[in-house]
Parts: sequence; structure tokens; C-alpha cells
Amino acid sequence: MAAGSIIRDVKARLFNVPLDEVLSDSKHCDHTHFQLVTATIRLEDGREGTGYTYTGGKGGAAILAMIEHDLAPFLLGQDAADIDALYDGMQWHIHYMGRGGVASFAISALDIALWDLKGKGENAPLWRMAGGAGRTAKAYRGGIDLGFSTEKLVASVGSYLDAGFNAVKIKVGRPDLADDVARVAAVRERIGPDVRFAVDANYALSVEQSIAAANAFQPYDLLWFEEPTIPDDYFGYARIARETGMPLAMGENLHTIHEFELALDHAALSFIQPDGSNCGGITGWLHAAALGRRKGLPVCSHGMQELHVSLVAGQDPPGAAQAGWIEVHSFPIDRYTTRPLVMENGFAVAPDEPGTGVSFVWEKLEPYAA
Amino acid sequence: MAAGSIIRDVKARLFNVPLDEVLSDSKHCDHTHFQLVTATIRLEDGREGTGYTYTGGKGGAAILAMIEHDLAPFLLGQDAADIDALYDGMQWHIHYMGRGGVASFAISALDIALWDLKGKGENAPLWRMAGGAGRTAKAYRGGIDLGFSTEKLVASVGSYLDAGFNAVKIKVGRPDLADDVARVAAVRERIGPDVRFAVDANYALSVEQSIAAANAFQPYDLLWFEEPTIPDDYFGYARIARETGMPLAMGENLHTIHEFELALDHAALSFIQPDGSNCGGITGWLHAAALGRRKGLPVCSHGMQELHVSLVAGQDPPGAAQAGWIEVHSFPIDRYTTRPLVMENGFAVAPDEPGTGVSFVWEKLEPYAA
Ligand SMILES: [Mg+2]
Ligand SMILES: [Mg+2]
Repeated sequence: MAAGSIIRDVKARLFNVPLDEVLSDSKHCDHTHFQLVTATIRLEDGREGTGYTYTGGKGGAAILAMIEHDLAPFLLGQDAADIDALYDGMQWHIHYMGRGGVASFAISALDIALWDLKGKGENAPLWRMAGGAGRTAKAYRGGIDLGFSTEKLVASVGSYLDAGFNAVKIKVGRPDLADDVARVAAVRERIGPDVRFAVDANYALSVEQSIAAANAFQPYDLLWFEEPTIPDDYFGYARIARETGMPLAMGENLHTIHEFELALDHAALSFIQPDGSNCGGITGWLHAAALGRRKGLPVCSHGMQELHVSLVAGQDPPGAAQAGWIEVHSFPIDRYTTRPLVMENGFAVAPDEPGTGVSFVWEKLEPYAA
Repeated sequence: MAAGSIIRDVKARLFNVPLDEVLSDSKHCDHTHFQLVTATIRLEDGREGTGYTYTGGKGGAAILAMIEHDLAPFLLGQDAADIDALYDGMQWHIHYMGRGGVASFAISALDIALWDLKGKGENAPLWRMAGGAGRTAKAYRGGIDLGFSTEKLVASVGSYLDAGFNAVKIKVGRPDLADDVARVAAVRERIGPDVRFAVDANYALSVEQSIAAANAFQPYDLLWFEEPTIPDDYFGYARIARETGMPLAMGENLHTIHEFELALDHAALSFIQPDGSNCGGITGWLHAAALGRRKGLPVCSHGMQELHVSLVAGQDPPGAAQAGWIEVHSFPIDRYTTRPLVMENGFAVAPDEPGTGVSFVWEKLEPYAA
């Protein structure tokens, strides 16, 4: 047992952070704010590490309750250095109410705090702990823009290019496929042939509808079609891929390693997109990434760009065939940190400071404390 | 919209109810108490319905928080009469933090409250609403007895027979298979050849270990081998069934209809055991049951016998080939209701009063309020 590394305190907080404007996708109604749940672990020797998770506006109180009532009592008195044992221990501790959902969000926040402590203790930045391949990652700007008029959508995508992005994603899944196709066409027209372009239906479509949409999107050279149908229908994904040849992506709604196994074994994906805020933190993300790499897939991320940049960059240099993409999401968590995401020459750059490299500016969050 | 059926209030409560003695299985450490989360929905016209869920001692605060912060606000002002729409609405409302886990427990409690209201409004007991086949169900007594000495185990099983049960289940999953086999042999010796006898490993075993155990249990004429390995490994279950011929059962850890689909399509089960307290309430249980029946499986239940008796009895008369079994569980929720489970001639008898037929004696629960 490492000297001083016994966990003495776990402090979790919930913030309801308003968005600049109401954002809409096909399945989650309107987003007016996002929720941030932070978890700070303090060791016997006074060292502190902070992790976090986020939601689209619901579930934060349940995540907080599970940390405070179930997981913090489990962690107190244990050795923070043995992350793998604590990760497994947390999973089994809440297994009956767990295996995904709220439990995965709660475990994620705590696991990230443990990695923050580990990095600070070993003087290691996260990109090194996550593989050490490098500090840069391919990045695309993802919009939550299904509610935008086509005019506003095109202007919005244009603003991404102005900000230095060379890859973009828009929402699809409007009731009328012709509407989606027109929007996709307008965006491709605006960005030209060289900018990478993905679409995301947030599982609004049936398998049949997904096949029709994938076929209709063929002329527009899409990087991927994300979550066309519900994430649970692994075999449905395979049918869409088989019948259309469209590259498919998912992962933001896979919360356990078993769900990733099912998806990677059966869904015929071209990209996998684990989100460390809901698949078990950095430990869970690295487990999913290892599975994805074994299948030869580029391992991407969803949301939380200020942290995922280190994970994706650590896995592969951005020029590698298997390099993943980080999503630069519309929930601006990084606005409340000391280092909002850094972009250089179209690539995202991972922080080089020890730990996760994500430090909250608590004064900025304070007004939104629940 | 039915007159007066608008939801005006949702009141949820958490109780930590001590067990008479510490109970152990292979994976959840020791149980010292169970948690009961109740949800009472009040309509505009003053009618009330109560539902509930339970856990083995953790997660209750998170379930309560999700009801209070996310699901109650969604339900307020809606028409309680349209249960299907509210069920779907709740699932989508918390979808991003959901699809199983805590969300399924929270939705279950509320869905059961809606069915309680429906039954009271239509003057219909639950067994009628759940199919109407009859009021009686086959029932077995399930022990949480892995920590018992063989002597105490045999005495405990004997007490089940004395109480009128003609079917029993014990825990297996001790570190040494020989230990499990000796305990299974001792119980079969005690109960004789005519009493039905199942075992439950709470997923303590690998697939290889499960195959070895199933083979070693062959001489003891088991009704089923429950959860030999982790519930996520559907294809592993199929291998165990294929290589041993042992009838397999699971369901208490399947929380979404998609998990039931995967299990029923791929796990080669002989029995399915949905638990309405964690798979979406009565609506979720009936969905899972419909899938199971289509596959020709007997639909059983896990825990919460005072409510499941009506669901299982409503599906089939106990003499039917496809009739399921209710588990009479070691968490005595029914001790805190006006009608503890009624057994007659070895069969469990469903209540005949309108609604779920489960009415809590609040004064008995009050000392355990969180
Ligand atoms: Mg997405
Ligand atoms: Mg069981």
C-alpha cells in the first residue's frame, strides 16, 4: 500500500449549467442546459484528484446520490493507487442496480478522479498514461442543430470551418427524409469536397428507415452515419451496414464492456465512440478502446473533448490508419476549466500537465450549483 | 382524457428494512437489510395508487433521486390512464442515463403505481389485468443460504417443506465445486425425489466452471441452474446449455426489453425470470413475458412474490405446460403489507382486490424510513 494514498474523503457536486441557446436533436427534446457532476477524492496525505461526468440535463441527482450513498462509502479507507481493483470493486458493489445507466456515470466520475490522482502522483499527463502515442488528435465539430433552419445550419457549419475545423457533424432524423437529404446536400455544398462530414440520427430511425436514409446519403461522401437506430439493436446495425455499405458509428450509449463486446462482435461498425463519462471513466474507455483496436476500428470519443483529447491522442498519431476522431461537442464543459480545448492546425492538442489536465474553475461553476 | 385522472402528486419514500439474519450469496457479499422504495401517485380526483421497487441494500437513494428529480416532474399533469404512453415517455425522458440500471428500478415503481390506479379504477384485480388465466401459481421457496453450514442449509430447506412448499432453490457458487455438489446432494437427500429443486449461482462462475458444475449436478434432477455466469454473456449461456443439456434460467438482471430479446434469442434458456421491480414494472414484466411465451418458455419471476403471484397466475393455470414459477424470496417485503403471500395446497394465491393487491402497512415501515 502506497504511503498516504488511502482515500479519506469523496466530495461530489452537481451543477446545472445553462447553454447559450436551446439545442435540439431527434430524440432528447430540447437541451436548455447540461448537468455536470464532479467528484473530488482526497487522500490521507492531502493530495486531491477530480473527475466528472455530465448529462444532457437529467439524471444528475441520481448520479450524485449513488456516489454519495453507495460508492463513496465503498471507497473510503481504500488505497487509491490500485485503480483496477477499485474499478472492479465499484462495479460489483452496485452490480444489482448497475451494469450501465446511472451506475456507469457515477463510476466514471470517480474513476477519472483516481486517474487524476495517479497522473499527479507519477508526474504523468493523461496522454502518456493512455498509450503515449502523441499529443494530437483528429477532431471534428459536432452540432446539436436539428432544430436549426437550413440557412442557420449552413451558417453554423461555416462557423466551424472559420474556427479551424476540417471535419464536421450535423444531426439528422427529421420526420421527412427529404428534409434530411436537403440539409446534408446544403452542408456538403457549403464545405466542399475535402472537409470530412458525418451525420448523427440519435437513433430516431427504424432499421428500414436507416437503410433508406443511408442510401439517400450516398452521394454526399459521409465519414460515417452515427446511431441511425437504437443502440440496443446490434444486429439491426449489421443489416444497415450490409445492405448499404455506409460506414456506421456508435458508442455514446454503450455503458458496459459487455455492450461494447456485443456491438463490436455483431454491429458491423466502422468506428467505435466510447464516452469515458458514461462507460466507466478512463478505465472503461481504455477497455472499450482495446476491444475496438483488436477489431481494427478507429477509436473515437463522444463529448467531454477536454479529456478525450488525451485518450484519443495517446492511442495513435493522427496520421495512423487506425487513428480515431474526437468529437468537439456542443456542451462547453471546457469553458469552465483552466484550459479550454486547444486546436492547432486543425488538430486537437492534449494538455501536458500531470493528471487528467482538466481543472475546473470553481468560481465559474458556483452560480450553477444545484 | 379521463375525468379526474390527471397526475397531481408523486410521493416517493425510501426504507432500509433490516433482515432477521445476515444472508449471503456468491456475489453480493452479505445482505443485512433490503431497501424498499415506494412511489405513490395521486390524481386530480384524489385517487391514489402505490408502486414500489426494492434492492439488496444499495442504490435506493439514487432510485429515489431519479423519481423525485426526473420522473415525477415528467409525470405531473399527465393522464394516468394512458399507461403505455407514460411508460414509453418515461423511458425516453431518461434515455441517456437509462436503458437499464437505476432508471429501470425507478420506472418500475412508478409503473406499478399506475397499474394500481388502473385496477382500482376498473375494479380489476391484477391477476385479471395480467391475462386472467387464474388466481393460483406454482411457487418455490428460494433461500439466500450460501453462508449456511450444510446442516443449517438442510434444516432451512426442511422448514420450507414444513411451510407447505413442494419446490425449493438454494444458492451455489462456493469456491470449491465439491462443496456445492455435497450441498446439492444433501438437499436432494433431505427433500426426496418428488420435490422440485433448483440452484442459483448468482453468476459466480465462468462458462467453463458452469459447464463443470452443470455436469456435476446432473445426478440431482435439477429443475434449473440459475445464473451460472454473468447475465451479459448470452452466448456463454448457450454454450453451457448446449454442452451439458442442463436447463438454464435467468432474468432478474435483465432490465430492458432489448436485454430480454438478446437473452431469448441467444442464451438457450429453459426459463425466463423477469422481475417487475427492475424491468419496467408491470408493463415491463408483461412485455418480457410476451416475448418469453412466444419462445415457448415458462415465464417465472424473481422476488416481490406478493405482486408477482398475480402476474404469473394471470398468464397460465399452474397445470399448463408453459406455467411459470414464482420465487418466494428471502426479502420479506410482504411482511409489511396487509396481505402477506397466501399459499394453499402448495400453490400461491393471488389477491382478488382491485389494483395490485399490495397495500403497505405504513406504520410497520415507518421505523425504517431513510
Ligand atoms: Mg451522437
Ligand atoms: Mg437468482
